[in-house]
Amino acid sequence: MVEITEREVEETIDWLSGISAEGPGVTRLLYDKHWVEAQNGLKEKFEELGMKVEFDAIGNLFATLEGTEEPETIIASGSHVDTVVEGGSLDGQLGIVGPYLAVKKLLETKGKPKKTLRIISMAEEEGSRFPYGFWGSKNIFGMAKREEVEKIKDGDDISFVDAMAEAGFNFLEEDPKFAKMDAFIEMHIEQGNFLEAEGKSVGVVTAIVGQKRYDVTLKGQANHAGTTLMGYRKDAMEGAARMIVNGIDKAKAAGDPQVLTFGRVDPLPNTVNVVPGEVSFSIDCRHTDQDALNKFSEELVEDMKATAEKMGLEIEIDLWMDESPVAMDEEIIQTIEGVCEERDLDFKVMHSGAGHDSQIFAPHVPTGMIFVPSIDGISHNPAEATDTSDLVQGIEALKSSLEKLAY
Amino acid sequence: MVEITEREVEETIDWLSGISAEGPGVTRLLYDKHWVEAQNGLKEKFEELGMKVEFDAIGNLFATLEGTEEPETIIASGSHVDTVVEGGSLDGQLGIVGPYLAVKKLLETKGKPKKTLRIISMAEEEGSRFPYGFWGSKNIFGMAKREEVEKIKDGDDISFVDAMAEAGFNFLEEDPKFAKMDAFIEMHIEQGNFLEAEGKSVGVVTAIVGQKRYDVTLKGQANHAGTTLMGYRKDAMEGAARMIVNGIDKAKAAGDPQVLTFGRVDPLPNTVNVVPGEVSFSIDCRHTDQDALNKFSEELVEDMKATAEKMGLEIEIDLWMDESPVAMDEEIIQTIEGVCEERDLDFKVMHSGAGHDSQIFAPHVPTGMIFVPSIDGISHNPAEATDTSDLVQGIEALKSSLEKLAY
Repeated sequence: MVEITEREVEETIDWLSGISAEGPGVTRLLYDKHWVEAQNGLKEKFEELGMKVEFDAIGNLFATLEGTEEPETIIASGSHVDTVVEGGSLDGQLGIVGPYLAVKKLLETKGKPKKTLRIISMAEEEGSRFPYGFWGSKNIFGMAKREEVEKIKDGDDISFVDAMAEAGFNFLEEDPKFAKMDAFIEMHIEQGNFLEAEGKSVGVVTAIVGQKRYDVTLKGQANHAGTTLMGYRKDAMEGAARMIVNGIDKAKAAGDPQVLTFGRVDPLPNTVNVVPGEVSFSIDCRHTDQDALNKFSEELVEDMKATAEKMGLEIEIDLWMDESPVAMDEEIIQTIEGVCEERDLDFKVMHSGAGHDSQIFAPHVPTGMIFVPSIDGISHNPAEATDTSDLVQGIEALKSSLEKLAY
Repeated sequence: MVEITEREVEETIDWLSGISAEGPGVTRLLYDKHWVEAQNGLKEKFEELGMKVEFDAIGNLFATLEGTEEPETIIASGSHVDTVVEGGSLDGQLGIVGPYLAVKKLLETKGKPKKTLRIISMAEEEGSRFPYGFWGSKNIFGMAKREEVEKIKDGDDISFVDAMAEAGFNFLEEDPKFAKMDAFIEMHIEQGNFLEAEGKSVGVVTAIVGQKRYDVTLKGQANHAGTTLMGYRKDAMEGAARMIVNGIDKAKAAGDPQVLTFGRVDPLPNTVNVVPGEVSFSIDCRHTDQDALNKFSEELVEDMKATAEKMGLEIEIDLWMDESPVAMDEEIIQTIEGVCEERDLDFKVMHSGAGHDSQIFAPHVPTGMIFVPSIDGISHNPAEATDTSDLVQGIEALKSSLEKLAY
């Protein structure tokens, strides 16, 4: 058989999902016993394929299949082995199972590659056990700082350093040895509903959005809901509602990929018969283009200030997250798109609205991503799912891309 | 002296405010020991004026000064002696202190009235100890039902019936004997900022607003704030914001006395990076005219349904309070307005946006209200205050109105 079967995909995902804490979904947190068991289990699987398996000092796992002609050229794929608490069976580990099955099938059908193939099972991305994300990928490029994690603890008061030592790892003592790669492709679920809505099986990712997050506080005057005539109010909730409507209208007018979300809204005192004297709310603003993101968010902030001034409200705007967009590599995008066309896969070119390990890789390595649909857009939840036929198409796209790059 | 002095007003209010539980402001709850002490203290004060003092079966206090020519015609004034927890020194008791000082001064300057003057210190209005409001005024007119309070308890698990018995009272066994009155005027703080904003000392009240209160729940779809393009969202917070802006614009366009408040807004899951899948919010809608209130709120509901349908949101609208407006008596209004003009008091004709004992009286007795300004619109709070000069003007308006009606 040339193609990967649905049964192989389901069995491999089920096997890895089974390595989890008790409870709904999959829970496998950095350096816990299930994490150790999963990394060791993957090590065995990769060794069965004849790959050379190594851990780096902090626990990233690298499985290497040396190329026959250009062994120094490294074509890599991978994702993170950790999950959120009670997460699903795809976020992260699909990006390890996918290249495992792809390399297995390539070995069966094409033999050894000319260039070196490498699969990476990264230690951590979610930030779910300790308040630190992208620990795995940042370490690969020497971007993680020892002092950033030396004082942090998990919810059970276990220190990051102790947890790492218990799992058998330690800080990197020298320059990271696995930073050098010539291509990296990460397979991941979309975590949105775009592919599903478009009826597509594979997404070819062009960029990962940048995002700005704000906390906004409006202060007006709390008043009696009955005795205060409309003209005598400084209604902070009215102000927030006007800003939300204006912002969303602006985002729709700007068009894709601009997204804008007012996810948290907290009026005070939040009771039926008092005009809210204060409202705080969050803004999550994302775009794939830095200039567009800056322009949109600057205008949004100006609009909010103007609304506040017009209404006699005090406004405080705190920009507490400001991450730049990350473009995927043009040649890698074209490689993936090309194989999707050649193989007549049901694909769509798109961007990623969520963050991924690939955003850490992209400044260092020509990087691309392959998405598969998320049913109902659900992720970080036991209900996270993708039709197996779509998983197969996604892994086939990855397999053909790796073949194109390494054979 | 013909006029009431600031010192008399301050001393009398300070005396009554002193009869309170420990803690900030005034706390005097139905049938508690401070309530008993206050009613007994008032009884003595009224007896010192030569008034005949009686309690009804549930603890309303009636102080009567019999008329010399038409004793069967009863001109009454009063308000409630109870407070909210940690309330101010004016809400309720000003409507007892006011007529006390007015009658005292009338006796000093004009002697006995031709018609009978009566001051009522009502047992309860706030519903602060037990979940039942207007207990005092409703009992005066036989409107309170024994079964409505027989099973209710306070926060310390003391039953209403036991608390009433402990204070020395019981249910009314026959038709209430004090229901017959020919005029009733209640003096009260405005609890809003209209008089203050207008720079006036006295408000002549034309009507008490009716109010409708709703809980609205919008259901859309919770989605990832990054991966869900604007066109694929069912954002319940966007829906709520559009309804709030539309509602407030409508209320402003309708003009005074229409007020509309969205005091409570609770999005779910209320977190920065999730498009809210559900929002519940409250609506408080008030107007002095029943038809206007009905028309406005019906249109508001239709608008909300249309917005929900357009956005693909489910909507549930629960009307859980529906109280009719209550007009004050035209002759009483003209009497109060007339004396304000004659005496060149600094007054404004207005409505009440809050509920008062007068709304219970008005269907049975020609009723009017006199307001004094609330500094910063604050009430139900230890910071509740009115300039003493305004209190004097308000009590003078009451005194002259009682004189006009009873002498």
